[in-house]
Order: sequence, then C-alpha cells, then structure tokens
Amino acid sequence: MPDTAPARGFEQAEFERRLDRAQALMAEEGLGGVLLTTEPEIRYFSGFHTLFWQSPTRPWFLFLPKAGAPVAVIPEIGANLMRRTWVRDIRTWSAPNPADDGLSLLRELLEPYAEKGAAVGMLKGHETHLRMPLGDFERLLEHLPGLTIRDATALVKSLRMVKSEAEIEKIGHICAVASRTFAAADGLFHADQPLTEAFRAFKIECLTQGADDVPYLVGGAGRGGYSDVISPPSPRPLQTGDVLMLDTGSVFDGYFCDFDRNFAIGAAEDEARRAYEVLYAATEAGLKAARPGVAAADLFQAMQSVIAQFDDQAHDNQGGDVGRLGHGLGMQLTEWPSNAAFDRTVLKENMVMTLEPSLSYGAGKIMVHEENIVVRDGAPTLLSERAAPELPIIG
Amino acid sequence: MPDTAPARGFEQAEFERRLDRAQALMAEEGLGGVLLTTEPEIRYFSGFHTLFWQSPTRPWFLFLPKAGAPVAVIPEIGANLMRRTWVRDIRTWSAPNPADDGLSLLRELLEPYAEKGAAVGMLKGHETHLRMPLGDFERLLEHLPGLTIRDATALVKSLRMVKSEAEIEKIGHICAVASRTFAAADGLFHADQPLTEAFRAFKIECLTQGADDVPYLVGGAGRGGYSDVISPPSPRPLQTGDVLMLDTGSVFDGYFCDFDRNFAIGAAEDEARRAYEVLYAATEAGLKAARPGVAAADLFQAMQSVIAQFDDQAHDNQGGDVGRLGHGLGMQLTEWPSNAAFDRTVLKENMVMTLEPSLSYGAGKIMVHEENIVVRDGAPTLLSERAAPELPIIG
Repeated sequence: MPDTAPARGFEQAEFERRLDRAQALMAEEGLGGVLLTTEPEIRYFSGFHTLFWQSPTRPWFLFLPKAGAPVAVIPEIGANLMRRTWVRDIRTWSAPNPADDGLSLLRELLEPYAEKGAAVGMLKGHETHLRMPLGDFERLLEHLPGLTIRDATALVKSLRMVKSEAEIEKIGHICAVASRTFAAADGLFHADQPLTEAFRAFKIECLTQGADDVPYLVGGAGRGGYSDVISPPSPRPLQTGDVLMLDTGSVFDGYFCDFDRNFAIGAAEDEARRAYEVLYAATEAGLKAARPGVAAADLFQAMQSVIAQFDDQAHDNQGGDVGRLGHGLGMQLTEWPSNAAFDRTVLKENMVMTLEPSLSYGAGKIMVHEENIVVRDGAPTLLSERAAPELPIIG
Repeated sequence: MPDTAPARGFEQAEFERRLDRAQALMAEEGLGGVLLTTEPEIRYFSGFHTLFWQSPTRPWFLFLPKAGAPVAVIPEIGANLMRRTWVRDIRTWSAPNPADDGLSLLRELLEPYAEKGAAVGMLKGHETHLRMPLGDFERLLEHLPGLTIRDATALVKSLRMVKSEAEIEKIGHICAVASRTFAAADGLFHADQPLTEAFRAFKIECLTQGADDVPYLVGGAGRGGYSDVISPPSPRPLQTGDVLMLDTGSVFDGYFCDFDRNFAIGAAEDEARRAYEVLYAATEAGLKAARPGVAAADLFQAMQSVIAQFDDQAHDNQGGDVGRLGHGLGMQLTEWPSNAAFDRTVLKENMVMTLEPSLSYGAGKIMVHEENIVVRDGAPTLLSERAAPELPIIG
C-alpha cells in the first residue's frame, strides 16, 4: 500500500527562515547581497519550481539583499509561475534577447552596490557553476567596476546541507517509492531481458509507485559483476549468473532519492557474493559512524577500513575509482559534503546523506552499495529500506 | 505497431567529420583549439553519453586541438565509459578533489598554447554556460597568463545546428514515439483525473511506446484554457470544458523531441476553439515558410502575421510573452536558432526546428501549438505527426 504523499511546496515561513539565515550570514561576512543563477539555489530561496530549466536558452536570476525581500530578475515566460511564489519583486524582460538577456535589469539592481564599493556573493566554489553566458557575466562586471564579487559557496552550502523536516519528508517519500520499486524486482527483471527493457520496466514501476520523475537511472549487468556505474543501458540481454545493479535518482516534488540495489539473475557467483557482503558490512560501519559531530572524512574512513580488508585479500583493486563513498542529497542528486578523505565537513543533525561504499574485484569489476540516511541525534534514520544482507537472487 | 528503433550511437566516421569541420573553422578563425565543459558539446565530439552529468560535483573537459585528436580530461569514474568512445587520449584524476579538480591536467594541456600566446575557444555566447566552478576557471587563467580565451559559440553552433541523417533519424524516432503517445490521449486522460496523474499516465505510456526517458513534461489545464506553459502539474482534477495542454521533451539515445498537444475535456468552448484554429493556421504558415535560405526571423514573421490578425480581433494579448515562436532541436530541448525577430540565422537543409506559435486570449489564458520539422530542399519534413486541424475533444 503506497504511503501518503507529503504536501507539495513549502509554507512561506520556511522561505522566510531560509532568507533570515542567509542574511545573518551575509552580515557576518560583510556581503551586500547574494546573486544566484542556478536552479537549486533559486528554488531554495523562492520556491520557483519548473522543469523549464532544461532549456538552456534563458538565464534566470534571484538576488538576496542583505536586508529586505528577494528580487527575481527573470524572463517574462516565468512571471506567472514566479508570482505564485512568495517573491513579490519580480522584474522581467522579453527573453530570449541575446543583446540584453537581463543585463540591463541586473545592472540597475546592482549599481547601488557598485557605487558603494560593496561586495556581492556569487557561487564560485566546488560543485557550483555559473548558469549564464560567460560573455554576459564579463560584460556585467565591466559595467559595474566598483562591484566586488565574492564566493558565497560556503554560505549557501551551510544552509542547504541541513534539511528542514518538510524537506526530509519529501526525500523520505521518494526513498519509500524507490524502495517499493526495488522490492518488486523479482517481477520486473529476468534472464533474456535486454538491459534497456529492464531500465524501462524499472522506470514505469517507479512512476506507478508514485515518483514524479525518474531523471536518473544508471547501472550495469554482467556475468559475475558489472564494470561501469554511470553507463546508459546496453541492449545486451540479462543472463543467468549476471549481477544486475540499478542506481536511481527518482524525484518527488523536486527532491531526490539516490540509491542502488544489486541482484543476481538466477544464480550468484561466490566472488560477487563476497563483494556484496563486504559492502553490506561497510554500510553497517557507515551507519554506526554517522553521528552529529563526526567529519565526513571520518565517515569515509569507517567504511573504507572495511573495504580495505577486502582489497588486501583480493590484491585486485584495479581502478574504477569513484572518488568518494557517498555525499549529501536533496534538491540535487549529489550535494555537499563528500564522504571522502579531503572533506572535513562536520555532520549535523538533519543532514541527508548517502552511504555509498564501492570496491573493485575480479577482472575489472566494480560493485557499489548505497543507502540514504538522515543524520539524527543518535543513530541515523534510514530513508531507503535497508538492502538485503546477502546478494538477492531473482528471476 | 512501433517503428524500429534506430541504432544507438554513431559511426566513428561521423565523429571524424564533426572534428574535421571544427578544425577547418578553427583554422579560419585562428584558434589553437577549443576547450569544452558542457554535456552536449562533449557528447557531440566524443560520443560520451551518460546521465551522470546530473551530478554537479565533478567537472568534465574535452579539448579539440586545431590539428590531431581530441583530448578528454575527466574524472576517473568516467574513464571506462570514455574508453568505449573513439577518444584515445584520456587523462583522468581522482575526483572530486576540490583542491585540484582537473586544473593541473588542464594547465599541462594548455601551457604550450599559453607559451605561444595562442587563442583557445570556449563557449561564452548565447544559450551557453561554463560548467565548472567559476573560481577554478579564474585560477586556471591566472596560471596561464599568455592564453587568450575567445568565444567559440558561433563555431560550435554552426556545426550543431545542421543535423546528420543519423541524428535526424533519432529525433524522428522519438517524435514518432511521442506522437503515438499523444494519439492514445483519449484513453489516458479523463475528467476527474488530477493533473499530476494525467502527467504520470503520459510518462508511462511514452516509456511503453519506446522513449528512453521523459525528462521534460510541462503543461496546464483550466476551464476554457490554461494560463501557464512551464508549470509542474497541480493536483487539480480535470473538468469538463477544460483545455489540457501537454508539452513533452522525450528522449531517444540522447536526442529530444519537443512538441505539445491541446485537448478539450468533454467539450470545447468557442474561444478555445478559435485560438486553436488560429495557431493551426500559424503553424501552416510556418510550414510554408520554412525553406533553406529563409532567416529564422522571417519564419517568425510568417507565423506572427497570422497570430497578429487574431490579436487585432481579440484586443487582448495580455502578456504570457514566450519571446519566440520555436527554436532548434536536437541533443538539447532547445537549441539555436530562435524563431524570433532578432535572429537572422539563415535556415539550412537538415536543420531540425520546432514551429511553436502561441497567443494570449480571454482572461490571462495562453495557448501554444508546436510541431517538429526538418528543413529540406523544398517543403520541410514533419517529424511530429501533424496536430488535428480542430481542437480534439476527448474523455
């Protein structure tokens, strides 16, 4: 029986809290405001939610002043939808207009800051990008010589990493939807099924179970294991003895789950079973380590130390380096922090994370496990239904 | 009966032709090479195809030298998949690594160009963006003071706008899939169905008909018409007298269709019927105008002149400005050129375009029609099955 879907959108009070916190940090950092160009950030502070971002044609801007209400500078095509959010100051232009795609409006908005020699924050750091033409950005700065642009990545990241209960509810819902979909695997996947068709069956089931979308589904299958974790599906039919892995980023109301499951088709080889057990144990270690106050790097080490024992035995960790063992999760498939040796971010209550241990084995094979959790005071809450302790055999 | 899906991927000769043409243009423009950071461009020149781009964490780079073979500078996690393309020079690093996410490798690659004071092209123009952290980009340039970055948008755009027959076949296939899905509308949509469920039914049908993915589905519904064309679906149930519009960007092998259909639920109001007929006539005018040698602006005028007659009668074109009446189509939902007054791009054979006339009517309502075509010598080929000449009543 499907669970009840949470309400869509957020209360206005939640957007007010997000802005308040951003403004408190701006005051600390001496920023006059923050200019945003990317979908998750604009949605986070405004509630503006549309798939239209997939069209690369038009830039969109949201400006958060250090005091007062946010200002949207957007193409006219989005005005109706933006008016349904809590944003009241909406400035539009007829876009696309390559000669002036919002630049005059931005100039007018930022000129007072430039005249005062104020600093405005933009996202310049890790895992961010500038979503406007680089040439337009350069032109904007030329026209605002007094303006200093500072990196606001840490500011935005510190807010977005810690989720509200309403956000956690949405992520929990899509995790439940994907968990039910994986639970139906025995009826969805079978020998002689082309991998393309297995992917299609998964997507249809996941939509049927309540996902809004299944924008991300990758995986692999092969005799005794798979060798790649980011490929689109091949038309090769599944065979008895294959290990099939599917990794989904499905979405509810703009929030992602991100976890995978491994299945053996008909029969499991020992090597694959052993890899599975190691990764199950590594995830258990991650579940034990994920506590407020612990660094993401320590969470990484907790899982890596289990995997390292296997590597020592197997003498065969030949590449397939994925760079980390999990990451933040929310409005994006992957968010800060990284469960990696370099990331000293300290876990806080209500961070939503993936635990994603992986290892290499055999001749160029790789296996990945993944679960989604919320960091809580004490043990984390699993949002994904925990994978089976042994490699499940289906079909 | 579903048509047969075209082969996935492309022959190596197609990538060689793309590179040859790019290199010929580089020679004309005096560029030492072109550095690419965005998914469609990297896929266009390498064949590297993965949904993993949805993770914003890692940057990816492809460098096209003015002579010789392309160089991929990518995270290790993508090495296996890149090795399956025609690219042989693959340089990887263990990513994510915020301290050095490919920058050392890029510096090594570009230093010889910087030493010669050569110019390297990047995408800086309309409808492009820089997909790497802005701070990293600035750091890269600081370390390569001799390097001149020039805008390569026109170069890349001139190649990508004109499709090969293999590309057209993929777009034609997904257009046929979406056409069959819309043809099933009478069984999919009905009064009392929440719009969220209508969207879900469409996606499942489209996957069943053969789409790899339905990443883009927007639309609206309302009594006598809808007021927004980029919203996610509301849970409001469809009602008799509603006009329902669905606009899909479905995908096969990384190529999009992009067209919509309008339906009346149970009964149609005169005003909506009239708007529909005007847009049908505007599309007909577009089909007559779309010829090699005609500017995109003229194609716009051909459609706009039909719509203007209606506006004159209705005295009620109150906003809902979408900025253009169609655009290029291919690896992205929207591509250059724009059917808009500003765009003097001359149509060429084998450009794939949307014709997308829209108008406002009644109290804040908007209607949009859309078809997908290939510009050919003579009349264009319709890739989408032509919409019915009158507003279809279903349910």
